Amino acid sequence: MKKIAVLGSTGSIGTQTLEIVREQKDIEITALAAGSNEKLLEAQIREFRPKMAALWEEKAARSLQGRVKDLPVKIVSGMEGLLEIARMEETEILVTAIVGMLGIRPTIAAIEAGKTIALANKETLVTAGHIIMPLAKEKQAPILPVDSEHSAIFQSLHGEDGNRIQKILLTASGGPFRGRKREELQQVQVEDALKHPNWSMGRKITIDSATMVNKGLEVMEAKWLFDVNPEQIQVVVHPQSVIHSMVEYQDGAVIAQLGTPDMRLPIQYALYYPRRKSLSGRRLDFYQLSSLTFEEPDLDIFFGLKLAFLAMERGGNIPTAYNAANEKAVALFLERKISFLEIPEIINTCMEQCRFIKQPDVSEILETEAEVYALIESRW
Amino acid sequence: MKKIAVLGSTGSIGTQTLEIVREQKDIEITALAAGSNEKLLEAQIREFRPKMAALWEEKAARSLQGRVKDLPVKIVSGMEGLLEIARMEETEILVTAIVGMLGIRPTIAAIEAGKTIALANKETLVTAGHIIMPLAKEKQAPILPVDSEHSAIFQSLHGEDGNRIQKILLTASGGPFRGRKREELQQVQVEDALKHPNWSMGRKITIDSATMVNKGLEVMEAKWLFDVNPEQIQVVVHPQSVIHSMVEYQDGAVIAQLGTPDMRLPIQYALYYPRRKSLSGRRLDFYQLSSLTFEEPDLDIFFGLKLAFLAMERGGNIPTAYNAANEKAVALFLERKISFLEIPEIINTCMEQCRFIKQPDVSEILETEAEVYALIESRW
Repeated sequence: MKKIAVLGSTGSIGTQTLEIVREQKDIEITALAAGSNEKLLEAQIREFRPKMAALWEEKAARSLQGRVKDLPVKIVSGMEGLLEIARMEETEILVTAIVGMLGIRPTIAAIEAGKTIALANKETLVTAGHIIMPLAKEKQAPILPVDSEHSAIFQSLHGEDGNRIQKILLTASGGPFRGRKREELQQVQVEDALKHPNWSMGRKITIDSATMVNKGLEVMEAKWLFDVNPEQIQVVVHPQSVIHSMVEYQDGAVIAQLGTPDMRLPIQYALYYPRRKSLSGRRLDFYQLSSLTFEEPDLDIFFGLKLAFLAMERGGNIPTAYNAANEKAVALFLERKISFLEIPEIINTCMEQCRFIKQPDVSEILETEAEVYALIESRW
Repeated sequence: MKKIAVLGSTGSIGTQTLEIVREQKDIEITALAAGSNEKLLEAQIREFRPKMAALWEEKAARSLQGRVKDLPVKIVSGMEGLLEIARMEETEILVTAIVGMLGIRPTIAAIEAGKTIALANKETLVTAGHIIMPLAKEKQAPILPVDSEHSAIFQSLHGEDGNRIQKILLTASGGPFRGRKREELQQVQVEDALKHPNWSMGRKITIDSATMVNKGLEVMEAKWLFDVNPEQIQVVVHPQSVIHSMVEYQDGAVIAQLGTPDMRLPIQYALYYPRRKSLSGRRLDFYQLSSLTFEEPDLDIFFGLKLAFLAMERGGNIPTAYNAANEKAVALFLERKISFLEIPEIINTCMEQCRFIKQPDVSEILETEAEVYALIESRW
């Protein structure tokens, strides 16, 4: 039995992780942590019987404690609760599927305890890659990507140790506004931006896909995960999302992973790596496939993607500013307080105006986030 | 220094192998063997300084001996010569790039001597896969494919030991007659069939690509090389020849190798496996790429491909009959003695009429070839 703890068990990645656990039957859930979805977490506790479970709010945690008092489960809350789960002795793999900066400290704690990390929290590497990767190397804690594109790259790199990577080809659907002109994007409504062509995802990440900030964050993650230079990462717009990403080697060979848009595949790959196990679901049918096309992303239209490369070049706490500014800007857009095109403008302003720190520690990363939040609240 | 012998050094694969040797500078050529191109072989001997060299005809070999008497090279001829080269103690890798049944005995000899085989001779596995593969396993002699499609599959399988293959997706350009109707193929001229859209190859193999018999032979090779059932091999027509082939695993993930149409890549991959080395030449540019499309092959039009699956199912010496009949039929077509559509008809007749042998040894394979040749000569 594999022993797995899931942070963010009621979200999209979390529930799909549990679908795999349900299908495979050889995984034991040691702990579950959710933000506020008490009802779903209770159901998950009753089904998977973890030793520990967490809700973010102390009050909600106490309410949950009352609901599950018939079960031998310890209910914890807050950052202390997440850290306790991250360090649990029984756990082999920690799936970090919580959204936001909250993910950083538990990930560090788990790495320090020598756990394998199935990483689905973008912020961890974007903001703290310079801390996480050396630490993971020191503690020999594998960091396995769960994101579809990074998993594809990871799969394309498997078995190629020692072979030089020429280029990472990170594919992007281009989102709902691919091919649009700048003028057309001025009037974009929240509803338009929430229509993603290929994947069904949460609201925040769907907007990130529409701005291609999502891809910008993935570029930054790829830099850390695969130890490449920014110049080695090429974003390829591939609207059909059949090729999930690729690696070009020094001999010119390109290795790619293709598949249907099913997040369970990369999740399962991370849980069982390097073993592949059967997975139910639709298969690619090349006889039915429409043609696959590829484009260069328009960095004037998708200015947020261009800013990601700039943030990477500047380094330090600037990727944190990029991410924090985007988070707030997307929230403002979803509240219809700013326009779609203002999202990257706000990111740009915050990247320029935040105080630069070359090697931020975790506190300084969180301070940068707070600084950016304050800046946005004061101005928009 | 890697030590390599090349059988078929003056052909397309042979000369490209030597281009790599010239570029990489860390390979020693131990022996070269050619059919009849005395002049080119002499130039190759002078450049690469092998210890041994062979021409098929004894007379030509004697003439060559006179031309290179200033060099310390032993000139041999005939099958004895090829076998002597195959067993040479100095050699680590034998590149078998000779065309036809001639390749079988030297390949067996090299496997028995524990050499690594870089296999570019289709007939070896098509006709004698049931002999070669168990022998290679017993002698722990790696068989590394040089063909572009099989190399792509081999690359897509690398590092996946123990993961179950669901399907091998063998891509095919579809040749110059893709999408044509049967009536249209009735009037096809030799010149039409020699126009291959993506690859520049020899005449015989270009006709094989037009009939898709080439793909049929590759399907049979794939069965042996990758130890899969015929039902697990799916031919996907992919006219752009960018994806060189793919593997679908049990989790639904498809791993593919893509590249420009450059045979030097699979040759080099076989020579240095599992290391990749730099290779000069054009790279795939996804921003410039036209769209990639996929189709089901029409087995009524490309009847030769359907026959390959039938030959595989029947097994024994039937793949030999398929190959021998095709060889003669293509020659007859190139001599304008039969029509294009008669090529698969002749193959079909020979598969039906030859004497069936369930587990043919090498002599019986050669007898089957002779029987098929005689049958064709008596009837066409």
